[in-house]
Amino acid sequence: MRKTLFLSVSDICRLIEFVGLPQFLGQLTDRIQADFARWQEFEKCPRFASYSAEGVVELMPTSDGSMFSFKFVNGHPKNPLIGLPTVMGFGCLADVATGCPLLISEMTLLTAIRTAATSVVAARSLANKGARSMAMIGNGAQSEFQVLAFFELLGVNRVNLFDTDAEATSKLMANLQGVAGLNLTAHATSRDSIRNSEIVTTSTASKLRASVLVPEMLEDGMHVNAIGGDCPGKTEVHPDVLSRAKVFVEFEAQARIEGEIQQMPPSFPVTELWEVVAGLKPGRLSPSDVTLFDSVGFSIEDFTTLCLVKELADRYHVGSDIELVPDMRNVKDLYGDSVGRFRRESIR
Amino acid sequence: MRKTLFLSVSDICRLIEFVGLPQFLGQLTDRIQADFARWQEFEKCPRFASYSAEGVVELMPTSDGSMFSFKFVNGHPKNPLIGLPTVMGFGCLADVATGCPLLISEMTLLTAIRTAATSVVAARSLANKGARSMAMIGNGAQSEFQVLAFFELLGVNRVNLFDTDAEATSKLMANLQGVAGLNLTAHATSRDSIRNSEIVTTSTASKLRASVLVPEMLEDGMHVNAIGGDCPGKTEVHPDVLSRAKVFVEFEAQARIEGEIQQMPPSFPVTELWEVVAGLKPGRLSPSDVTLFDSVGFSIEDFTTLCLVKELADRYHVGSDIELVPDMRNVKDLYGDSVGRFRRESIR
Repeated sequence: MRKTLFLSVSDICRLIEFVGLPQFLGQLTDRIQADFARWQEFEKCPRFASYSAEGVVELMPTSDGSMFSFKFVNGHPKNPLIGLPTVMGFGCLADVATGCPLLISEMTLLTAIRTAATSVVAARSLANKGARSMAMIGNGAQSEFQVLAFFELLGVNRVNLFDTDAEATSKLMANLQGVAGLNLTAHATSRDSIRNSEIVTTSTASKLRASVLVPEMLEDGMHVNAIGGDCPGKTEVHPDVLSRAKVFVEFEAQARIEGEIQQMPPSFPVTELWEVVAGLKPGRLSPSDVTLFDSVGFSIEDFTTLCLVKELADRYHVGSDIELVPDMRNVKDLYGDSVGRFRRESIR
Repeated sequence: MRKTLFLSVSDICRLIEFVGLPQFLGQLTDRIQADFARWQEFEKCPRFASYSAEGVVELMPTSDGSMFSFKFVNGHPKNPLIGLPTVMGFGCLADVATGCPLLISEMTLLTAIRTAATSVVAARSLANKGARSMAMIGNGAQSEFQVLAFFELLGVNRVNLFDTDAEATSKLMANLQGVAGLNLTAHATSRDSIRNSEIVTTSTASKLRASVLVPEMLEDGMHVNAIGGDCPGKTEVHPDVLSRAKVFVEFEAQARIEGEIQQMPPSFPVTELWEVVAGLKPGRLSPSDVTLFDSVGFSIEDFTTLCLVKELADRYHVGSDIELVPDMRNVKDLYGDSVGRFRRESIR
């Protein structure tokens, strides 16, 4: 029978438990880096977004000519008030040659993980080598994955935490307390957490123009990993921080709409990260440069993630088959092979 | 637990068996007509299409401000050579207020059914009242649903069949032989099948410029239901047929790219069907007019279909719940409520 693989939230957790989260983050980071290096092979467009008073629902498609993928993802800042995640998602992988859907997977969890992996791809190219300290501003749903990815893959072992909600910080510290070699420190202000951090990751969630990071907080050589500003009207970083920094984005057409750089004129210069990964453009020019990765998330990162989990799920026999597409004996006989067959078999 | 309803191919067959295919077609036709009448409440865009050498993969989103839906659908003309359907699809319904995905459903079968229902909506508005005869040109996967919908909902009981593949016609006749009151006649040429038919439905599949219908075949008062031309380069009707007829489309921006009217200059006049359904514009002006519905399929038809099957599946307890979205005790604790919880529960 023709089946589509379904990976539920529990299936993805099981898969990550098999592989190990650090190993999974490592594999995913390497794959994203490899796919960024072949960026020009992908079909790209800004995501389709349907805005409402409460939030946004988006579709993010891409294809490399062999596989097609898309992600459904929402952003509803008030969802936590009714016990729902702000961001939920699922994805699909399909065979370009036949159009067959091969995989449907949860992507709420996978989106957080691929965002962290992409942040590491950027930091590998842009941060000063040997950086060991990071401020983590915003200790919500994304934060553990960011902290773990930077610790496991880049050796960032001193993390300075800040959140306006102290309970969020406590939650992060409790979740990661068993990670040997990782030193977490809670701070009373974002300024304190940023002081003496070589990398600054901002991951806050409010849907408004915020200034989590202002120019006075910047220090020479800093790398800023700004992942919270990701839709029109939502930014985290003061425009003067952008002016001071060398700014890198995933896909310029999308970042101009959704990223921190929506605050800047269209002529504000940015570099697409893949160009640095592919060796076509320089990243950081001097150890004193301030670099900033204005991350909004891009379809290719989801593509890479879906390809990896499909491969791992097949290897570890995780997930279940669902009957998403009819199994037809005669492709011209949709009626006879569906409602007709069902009727015959019910009668029998 | 937060669950998403999944409706497999078998679930949709079961649902249709419960409700009855004629009743399901009837309900769906009425719903599509009602949604076309409130067309302006929907968010609309031409579908996103990813073209490859072998075919196309499309995403068709829409929203009425309360529900958001999209369909994934492919079109691969050579698929039958390897035993796969030309067109496969699935759809998703999500709550606009929260972004929650509520339903994932097969839509290979549902697309054929909603296409037939939409054809009836058009014929109700455009064909001469009392038409009882129809030519069915192309007897593939769509044809039984078209014939049944026109018979059950409009009383079209004399159907003249033609297909270049005589086995397709035999299959159609075998599938519908038990339908009391429906008279099916196979013809050796499309010309023969069209002669004396008041309605002509064309549903052929080859991906090229075909001329299934040429001007000499037209008779005064005919209504043409052209559903086979649905992507760039694929048309069924000779351009002079379009010039002679009054042409109606679903969504003009999409029909100009994908419909029969891709053969005509951009200034060629068309009327959107919803305007006729809503009473804003006339359909047929005289019994001798030739009307033509240039149908390519539109997202609102899928939206209506998904809303109806969700309602019916809930009522008849059909389908299964899938864990597509994490059930979080603390929405800021994605890590602890997913991989963390899974680890704790595995150890316990």
